[in-house]
Amino acid sequence: MTAILPARLGQRLEEVDTPALVLDLDAFEGNLRRLNEALAGRKVRVRAHAKTHKCPEIARRQVAAGAVGVCCQKVSEAEAMVEGGIGDVLVSNEVVGAGKLARLARLARRARVGICVDHALQVNALGAAALAEGVQLDVYVEIDVGARRCGVAPGAPALELAQHIAGTAGLRFAGLQAYQGSAQHVRTMQERRERIAIAIEAARSTRALIAAAGIACPVVTGAGSGSFMFEADSGVYDELQPGSYIFMDADYAKNEWAPPLPRFEHALFVLATVMSTPVPGRAVVDAGLKASSVDSGLPTVWERPGLTYARASDEHGVIDVQAGAAGPALGDKLLLVPGHCDPTVNLYDWYVCMRGGVVEALWPITARGAVA
Amino acid sequence: MTAILPARLGQRLEEVDTPALVLDLDAFEGNLRRLNEALAGRKVRVRAHAKTHKCPEIARRQVAAGAVGVCCQKVSEAEAMVEGGIGDVLVSNEVVGAGKLARLARLARRARVGICVDHALQVNALGAAALAEGVQLDVYVEIDVGARRCGVAPGAPALELAQHIAGTAGLRFAGLQAYQGSAQHVRTMQERRERIAIAIEAARSTRALIAAAGIACPVVTGAGSGSFMFEADSGVYDELQPGSYIFMDADYAKNEWAPPLPRFEHALFVLATVMSTPVPGRAVVDAGLKASSVDSGLPTVWERPGLTYARASDEHGVIDVQAGAAGPALGDKLLLVPGHCDPTVNLYDWYVCMRGGVVEALWPITARGAVA
Repeated sequence: MTAILPARLGQRLEEVDTPALVLDLDAFEGNLRRLNEALAGRKVRVRAHAKTHKCPEIARRQVAAGAVGVCCQKVSEAEAMVEGGIGDVLVSNEVVGAGKLARLARLARRARVGICVDHALQVNALGAAALAEGVQLDVYVEIDVGARRCGVAPGAPALELAQHIAGTAGLRFAGLQAYQGSAQHVRTMQERRERIAIAIEAARSTRALIAAAGIACPVVTGAGSGSFMFEADSGVYDELQPGSYIFMDADYAKNEWAPPLPRFEHALFVLATVMSTPVPGRAVVDAGLKASSVDSGLPTVWERPGLTYARASDEHGVIDVQAGAAGPALGDKLLLVPGHCDPTVNLYDWYVCMRGGVVEALWPITARGAVA
Repeated sequence: MTAILPARLGQRLEEVDTPALVLDLDAFEGNLRRLNEALAGRKVRVRAHAKTHKCPEIARRQVAAGAVGVCCQKVSEAEAMVEGGIGDVLVSNEVVGAGKLARLARLARRARVGICVDHALQVNALGAAALAEGVQLDVYVEIDVGARRCGVAPGAPALELAQHIAGTAGLRFAGLQAYQGSAQHVRTMQERRERIAIAIEAARSTRALIAAAGIACPVVTGAGSGSFMFEADSGVYDELQPGSYIFMDADYAKNEWAPPLPRFEHALFVLATVMSTPVPGRAVVDAGLKASSVDSGLPTVWERPGLTYARASDEHGVIDVQAGAAGPALGDKLLLVPGHCDPTVNLYDWYVCMRGGVVEALWPITARGAVA
């Protein structure tokens, strides 16, 4: 597994065995800069989402670039981040189960740890875990700001839960988790702006209600790569949780990108080899759906005009060659832009980090498969 | 990664941390039996497809049940199988790249190793690798029997390639790979039978052409879980390559199953926990698309009438609760039947093997992520 290295330092990209998950370091570092430039002069903090990359090497670079810490979705992911040197982790998700909560509380001995709730029973269980471990946990109330997934309704239900947290030993009410996930891939700027305006208003009014009840609401946190400038400019959000901005996948590339959002560059690729050229107009690569997740659409072929990734099966990708286009030869290597970066990363144990066409580093994806 | 065990032996299923990949041993063993019973009295051999399970523990049980060996799709998968004690492995796929071919040839020192080709350049490269290692490789010509993926056309192009193999030192022409993958999930028995009839005729006529040219064609191999009885009854196929029959996923369950095909039982599940019950009619589990692959459809909820897995995001599964149905409580555990077993298995490092609701064994998925 991770013990088998996917490439050698100094190797040229075309020598790397395939399929391989390739990170273009110039584009990645450029994306870190683009985020900072877009947010320059604003008071919001970045809490980058580590579910995207699952890699402490990347998290440390995000913190070095100014992020206050990271978000995770799972306790096991948070453990990998703390183990990798990150001192401030928010599990931006509900967690149920005594074993997981005990681990979360243990983690709070080594790092600042936050967690979300949307039910009183979760609060009770968290309090018990914090007391048993002798730690204090930051607890955020998740409100449903339009994604219809987890979260209590904005307003009174959130206040009730905040009061419950404030009255529970071992817990500190830390604020609101207000992430509108379903808006991130709405294609037009205008529609995304409208969806986020609803989220902002829900967060604003809920925070005001909680403050009016005499409970401090230190942080409103949320936002993703497709919308974060709207939240940043709202005056309501204190922390932003973009994840995919570092990689930019094919699905995000289908969004309209216009100011105030910066245009990020593709930094994540799957390197594939043409293993079959059975008939004119068709080539087959060795990267199928076990090499590039297809849940949000097929990968696209990078900088090879006329080539379209048309079908994926487990271990095959069928490439259509447009009439008149130069078809790839057997053995050619193609870079694919994954349809969805997060689950694609979760298929690999290593990033092959490349600069100027040469392998510069190998970064382990230590939280790969950390779903528990 | 694999060092972290997902469960303890003797644990009850409801105590297992989630998400977990659960194998029901009674159902699994029953599926091994069902395959054998269906094939009783026929001369075809089973060469089970290990891309489905990626686990030598399972491969050894398939061999113990009568399989002559396994198929793999990748060299790294084949290495894991040989390392795990399997002595006869067919890479039922084209492989391109000198490094991979050198590894394949090395593997042939320890096991019987077969490989497929659909281009003369692949034959030349295989010959060079076999000579360099001083081994002989079994080489199969893949013919396209209707799936429009890899493979030369049946007939003359296959003969030409067979002659090329027969004339290449280090290689033995072993027969035809004739797998109709795209027919496996055609829903009606009748349509599947028609598609496979075309594949059978293509394989029959191509074998006859090769034999007429004076070249022995020892093996015709192919077939999958959705069709194998048609190939078994054809008199043309010598080996069958079913993979999913051991698990039966939700997509295969949508097929019409009728004699001569046996009806396999669901043996593979994702155990999930209800982590949020935000509003009546909706529950959210901790198993999203990083826990159960959605490329062939969403998972289904096992034996909980009125519950439907309606939407997946990275780490969340939204469960719709039908009006009047008993909604799950926070913390309830649900078994999900994955939409597609192969890529779901590829997300996990371990099978939690269960019998009678108790964890009986943990089997490592040693070829997880083995895409190269």
